Amino acid sequence: MQSWVDGQPAHALASLKDRGLAYGDGLFETLAVKAGQPLLLDLHMQRLAQGCSRLAIVADNTVIRSEVLAYAQAMGEGVLKLIVTRGDSLRGYSASPEALPRRILQASPPAAYPEANAQEGIQLFDCATRLAEQPLLAGLKHLNRLEQVLARAEWQDPAYAEGLMRDTSGRVIEGVFSNLFLVRDGSLYTADLQRCGVAGVMRAALLVEAERQGIARHVTDISFEQLRQADELFLCNSVYGIWPVRAFAELSWPVGPLTRKLQGIARTLLDV
Amino acid sequence: MQSWVDGQPAHALASLKDRGLAYGDGLFETLAVKAGQPLLLDLHMQRLAQGCSRLAIVADNTVIRSEVLAYAQAMGEGVLKLIVTRGDSLRGYSASPEALPRRILQASPPAAYPEANAQEGIQLFDCATRLAEQPLLAGLKHLNRLEQVLARAEWQDPAYAEGLMRDTSGRVIEGVFSNLFLVRDGSLYTADLQRCGVAGVMRAALLVEAERQGIARHVTDISFEQLRQADELFLCNSVYGIWPVRAFAELSWPVGPLTRKLQGIARTLLDV
Repeated sequence: MQSWVDGQPAHALASLKDRGLAYGDGLFETLAVKAGQPLLLDLHMQRLAQGCSRLAIVADNTVIRSEVLAYAQAMGEGVLKLIVTRGDSLRGYSASPEALPRRILQASPPAAYPEANAQEGIQLFDCATRLAEQPLLAGLKHLNRLEQVLARAEWQDPAYAEGLMRDTSGRVIEGVFSNLFLVRDGSLYTADLQRCGVAGVMRAALLVEAERQGIARHVTDISFEQLRQADELFLCNSVYGIWPVRAFAELSWPVGPLTRKLQGIARTLLDV
Repeated sequence: MQSWVDGQPAHALASLKDRGLAYGDGLFETLAVKAGQPLLLDLHMQRLAQGCSRLAIVADNTVIRSEVLAYAQAMGEGVLKLIVTRGDSLRGYSASPEALPRRILQASPPAAYPEANAQEGIQLFDCATRLAEQPLLAGLKHLNRLEQVLARAEWQDPAYAEGLMRDTSGRVIEGVFSNLFLVRDGSLYTADLQRCGVAGVMRAALLVEAERQGIARHVTDISFEQLRQADELFLCNSVYGIWPVRAFAELSWPVGPLTRKLQGIARTLLDV
């Protein structure tokens, strides 16, 4: 399906003056679309609004929301990528106050991950690329993603479905394109993302759902030792739901009951 | 003048699938052009090659060099921006091995900075935005530049021509779009850029020229205390040459003799 730029079919081209290209000056969201519906739309729009606010990009969320709805309707099924940039500018980091934020909508086919990832769990690669600590950008799904590009380029072996990223201080943070949860003594742990990492929409949804279910949740710094001692480990994102982690380096975990329970919830969240 | 994409006039549009837009997955160079000549071309091409090597972008530097020469010839005078991205890819951080790096050439008018910046020196803004420490990307002029965007957005008052950036540990690193040098007891000091910062082409040229002139040079960590105790302070880049720093917060410096000497050298480097 053809992309849209600012609501118009775009012939797959964007402005060369766009600050998204020049500086990665923008944000994105990746939404699963089923039966013409963008899933978890409220949470995606919330995160986008928070990102725009922190980067001082004044985008019209009402217009974006209605465009996403219309585009998803036209797509039917697949993955919808929404990019919002600060728009065009002249040379130099200083943004023109008149710059109009640009919105770009792109369609991809449904994600084609092996069903075994969700059923049997996955093996996690040990990424050498560390996440730098930058509180001003932490949590945002912004367009400065060279760390993820470098991390993802570390392995080609399809035996690894994802890679584990630590920060430069060695804390356990997330996957390259997923958030990470640990289970220990029936409680749920996920990394605090005040210094780095992307605050995923599925992570947010699962934290809410866990609270509803009365499951203790801890958003906190996670050491490698805690990872080692976890009873269960899983990854999540808003496209594939939940993948149990079965193996990482010499460590292994069973696919545990809390992972299976939350996986059922994630499946419901990604259904229409 | 019209931009070129992969050697062709581009009607100001780039591919929406370009990883430069999606992830800031690429590098750039900003060259002064005079009398149809791109200045400091060898150093720009060297830095680009180092960046491509570290990001594993396999670009054809011979083609890029000849395009830059032809484009500069057509421009005559102004600022030439060269962007090299990893090219197009499908959704996801993983790059396609067949992806062809893309090169984009853009022309801007000559930089219009007040002559007083160079003559009388400038006042430096104290940026609250800190540079995160990421050794894998340090020194590169890559397209992940949100830190500079945030820092440059901190001030609108034209009394400040540039802003000082420290790293998250408080070390003095650089300007938002310049490198910084200190003079102390006749020696030259500039920040070591192993953890963060952009290794500017004018910085590299000045380090070479200083060696030729027998001026002691130290590429090292610089504390705020060292900045405070400097005899002279100046900023440089490959478009404007050298600006003496006269004032920062409550501190002030004279425009000193070594700054003036190097300013003369920088002027020669930016002449044809």
